[in-house]
Amino acid sequence: MAKVSFDRHPDQYRHWHLRVEPPIAWLELDVDEQGGLVPGYELKLNSYDLGVDIELYDAVQRLRFEHPEVRAVVITSAKDKVFCAGANIRMLAASSHAWKVNFCKFTNETRNGIEDATENSGQVYLAAVNGSCAGGGYEIALACDRILLVDDNSSTVALPEVPLLGVLPGTGGLTRVVDKRRVRRDRADVFATRPDGIKGRTAVDWRLVDELVPRPDFRAVVTRRALEAAARSNRPEDGRGIELAPLERTETADAIDYRHVSAALDRDLGVVTITVRGPGDGGWLLAMTRELDDLILRLRTNEPELGTWVFRTEGDPEAVLANERVLLDANDWLSTEILLYYKRTLKRLDVTSRSLIALIEPGGCFAGVLTELALACDRQYLLDGPPIDDEDSAERACVVLSDANFGVFPMGNGLSRLESRFYGEHDHLDWLKRERDRRLEAADAVELGLVTDAPDDLDWADEIRIVLEGRGALSPDALTGMEANHRFVGPETVETKIFGRLSAWQNWIFTRTNAAGPEGALRRYGTGQKANLDRKRV
Amino acid sequence: MAKVSFDRHPDQYRHWHLRVEPPIAWLELDVDEQGGLVPGYELKLNSYDLGVDIELYDAVQRLRFEHPEVRAVVITSAKDKVFCAGANIRMLAASSHAWKVNFCKFTNETRNGIEDATENSGQVYLAAVNGSCAGGGYEIALACDRILLVDDNSSTVALPEVPLLGVLPGTGGLTRVVDKRRVRRDRADVFATRPDGIKGRTAVDWRLVDELVPRPDFRAVVTRRALEAAARSNRPEDGRGIELAPLERTETADAIDYRHVSAALDRDLGVVTITVRGPGDGGWLLAMTRELDDLILRLRTNEPELGTWVFRTEGDPEAVLANERVLLDANDWLSTEILLYYKRTLKRLDVTSRSLIALIEPGGCFAGVLTELALACDRQYLLDGPPIDDEDSAERACVVLSDANFGVFPMGNGLSRLESRFYGEHDHLDWLKRERDRRLEAADAVELGLVTDAPDDLDWADEIRIVLEGRGALSPDALTGMEANHRFVGPETVETKIFGRLSAWQNWIFTRTNAAGPEGALRRYGTGQKANLDRKRV
Repeated sequence: MAKVSFDRHPDQYRHWHLRVEPPIAWLELDVDEQGGLVPGYELKLNSYDLGVDIELYDAVQRLRFEHPEVRAVVITSAKDKVFCAGANIRMLAASSHAWKVNFCKFTNETRNGIEDATENSGQVYLAAVNGSCAGGGYEIALACDRILLVDDNSSTVALPEVPLLGVLPGTGGLTRVVDKRRVRRDRADVFATRPDGIKGRTAVDWRLVDELVPRPDFRAVVTRRALEAAARSNRPEDGRGIELAPLERTETADAIDYRHVSAALDRDLGVVTITVRGPGDGGWLLAMTRELDDLILRLRTNEPELGTWVFRTEGDPEAVLANERVLLDANDWLSTEILLYYKRTLKRLDVTSRSLIALIEPGGCFAGVLTELALACDRQYLLDGPPIDDEDSAERACVVLSDANFGVFPMGNGLSRLESRFYGEHDHLDWLKRERDRRLEAADAVELGLVTDAPDDLDWADEIRIVLEGRGALSPDALTGMEANHRFVGPETVETKIFGRLSAWQNWIFTRTNAAGPEGALRRYGTGQKANLDRKRV
Repeated sequence: MAKVSFDRHPDQYRHWHLRVEPPIAWLELDVDEQGGLVPGYELKLNSYDLGVDIELYDAVQRLRFEHPEVRAVVITSAKDKVFCAGANIRMLAASSHAWKVNFCKFTNETRNGIEDATENSGQVYLAAVNGSCAGGGYEIALACDRILLVDDNSSTVALPEVPLLGVLPGTGGLTRVVDKRRVRRDRADVFATRPDGIKGRTAVDWRLVDELVPRPDFRAVVTRRALEAAARSNRPEDGRGIELAPLERTETADAIDYRHVSAALDRDLGVVTITVRGPGDGGWLLAMTRELDDLILRLRTNEPELGTWVFRTEGDPEAVLANERVLLDANDWLSTEILLYYKRTLKRLDVTSRSLIALIEPGGCFAGVLTELALACDRQYLLDGPPIDDEDSAERACVVLSDANFGVFPMGNGLSRLESRFYGEHDHLDWLKRERDRRLEAADAVELGLVTDAPDDLDWADEIRIVLEGRGALSPDALTGMEANHRFVGPETVETKIFGRLSAWQNWIFTRTNAAGPEGALRRYGTGQKANLDRKRV
């Protein structure tokens, strides 16, 4: 299959119209039936595939950076009588297990990004449901701050996955219904087993939507609600947007190179070595984050057999700290957006089904924001000695902590990565705080618990080789499950429940004959034949 | 396959020795290699199957009820150099997916019961690890309050599931390591990928065990720690145990009958109707709970095709309230134990992969403790009218709330079932509190949100039939996933993480070719052949 690219621009959207009328932006879904990312299905009834969602992701990102003047975003449909029918069923039925899981992960991240924009950027999302709204379509609405449903005696909201397809509403649906919108669980049960959905007053009474609007008034009421949301937004009035220019990327069979990020693909070992270079100029963190984000998405989608990602850095720790200091002190909308974007990109790593290893070597710059990258990894190795290829050098590897490591980039569980690493150890966290802005070389880094091991230069090459070969020999599935359980300690949120609980159940169901087998509900949907179900409860 | 029975008595244990030396009880694992529950494997190295764990469950239960004088319980091994090798791999490799999942659920519940005894009954469990301790063996230790490891330069603790079998340490292992024992996540990663485990000082430094004891001192130090734990226990000194006499149970092809509980099995519809009869005497709640517990376990294990359980009650609501009042006011060890046991039995329902429906009819007694049973269900239907077979009767169905519904029986998430049902709605919960001890008939029950629907006597039969037939037509897997997501809103605990996150990932991995396929790691273990793994990360 051709590699999937995540490069998009509103001028070339096939499925969305983005119209900016400050303080409101209108994001209208108008799926091109013939515009599927992969051949073999038609995107009828505003149903979506990964390609539709990549455009949505692009739009959400651009609104945040290019349109500071936007304070409310309305998601609606450009089609008559249908808002969105959800993920395309033919596409799901024909997809491999890995594709389905990766698709769901990306769409989940985009929905979380919508909530992040609402909560942290003062760009409040509203769903203007102007027609039938089912499955993943309703899950888009659930990610919005307010859901308005047209009252035309036919438009419904529905989660028909369980009754029609034998799978879950897995893009946050089940979780957001009971945990975010606090629908009573017995009503949630009725709702999610009813293929025809719920409309009118009951939808409001059950809290499935916030407001019911007669069709003639729909546009006016939606506009009024958007203006009200915009008026409440704390987004500054005077920002000037910056353009997200196309990424410069060079790709060969075994390498993907950007300006600040490079990836070397070792297909024999199943390892990608990702090198992040420190800052040269003030725009570094945004540029680097965009590159890293793009790389994560491309590797996840296009290189499933490369199971271990090794993170390295090159550059001057002081330059990283100086660069991040400007952003941390700035307190303007753009700096906030950049930090939020880096937060979301780190969160992508937290839910990435790859083993993540940080190598901390002389000449590297794991400081502040980049230390956060090391802390997102499953393990951290620090070379205790001179550079491997220059044994006379006095240069030594170090880690530097900064304010950036104490709450600027919370994980999905609401904790910083240091709070997760040292869960409940308040004294130790206080100690770490006192060690900010200091070069922590091998002995310090070990004592402070910031690294897994610190082999000396004689052992380094062997130990890292053994780690990488050993990892490559383990079951990829068991590693994915293990990492998903280790990475999130302590409290849970809607977000961690979606990735940890809902997704895990969905992945299981996706493997089951009752859904994905030749006679399963997902495969038989629309064929006129009933699914042949194994009735055993497991 | 023969039906599995959960009837056990210490006199007939094949795999455990229970020795009571107040205030300590010694529970020694001494697995009979030839004593597997199912033919086809030998239980070598103190490895266990469901039969071994049913005895453990019986012992934990009896200690709580029959031995109030016990204030500390030591789990150790009667075999030289091996504590426990975990779940038997041959058994797992040969088992169906459903059997594996059900087995893991029961063992998880038993581990949680050990923690419940430690925390709430003043029977503190200690693991005296006197030999190698791997996988499920270490997971038993993790459920204990304190882990003592013999320091003999060979005994290790290990979680070798990922590297050796390609599955997870799914009986709480991954979760308890990072969330309960707060092992740093990079160390947890190293530990859970290392087949040989960790011993000696490192095991203590990493918090995998609490204490290292030289072999000659082992018995003495374990005894001292148990006596110290007993001294701290708040268990009353003067209790007299009560015997858990054998259950009286009549079983036919389509019915299981006990004194207070009856189950009618409808194999065509895939429904079990469970009728709980209200109290006749003071021992009712304990007797009824034992019967209900036994019934849940038997149905889960032996009747996987009966996917919907319908709960009914018969009796006088006032009698239920009078009966529970005695227990709630008693404040003695036995009343506490009975309430804790009922709590654990309700929790079994919360994690049971069956659709649960409560039918509230005239003549029923859904009051207090039994209302809790209705609230554990996915839906509640109340008949608004006279009894179906006696239309002239003035009797009406009702629900009664009592103190028992406001925190006595918390779910795994730490919330009462009413707090879960009305998550975050404090005013509504206050209102419900004011309605205690009142017969809430149809209109009240609907207004208070206690029932899903209240059909009248003309609609009742049809509506219930449609609900049950409709449920039976849905994919059993999708229902299981949906219910597991709806039942636990709000906060999460180690317990809900184990059932929601860890188990869901484990179930997924159990379905994967890399584990359970003919060339998968679980099936190939011990054959001398390496597993043939699909390297794609999903």
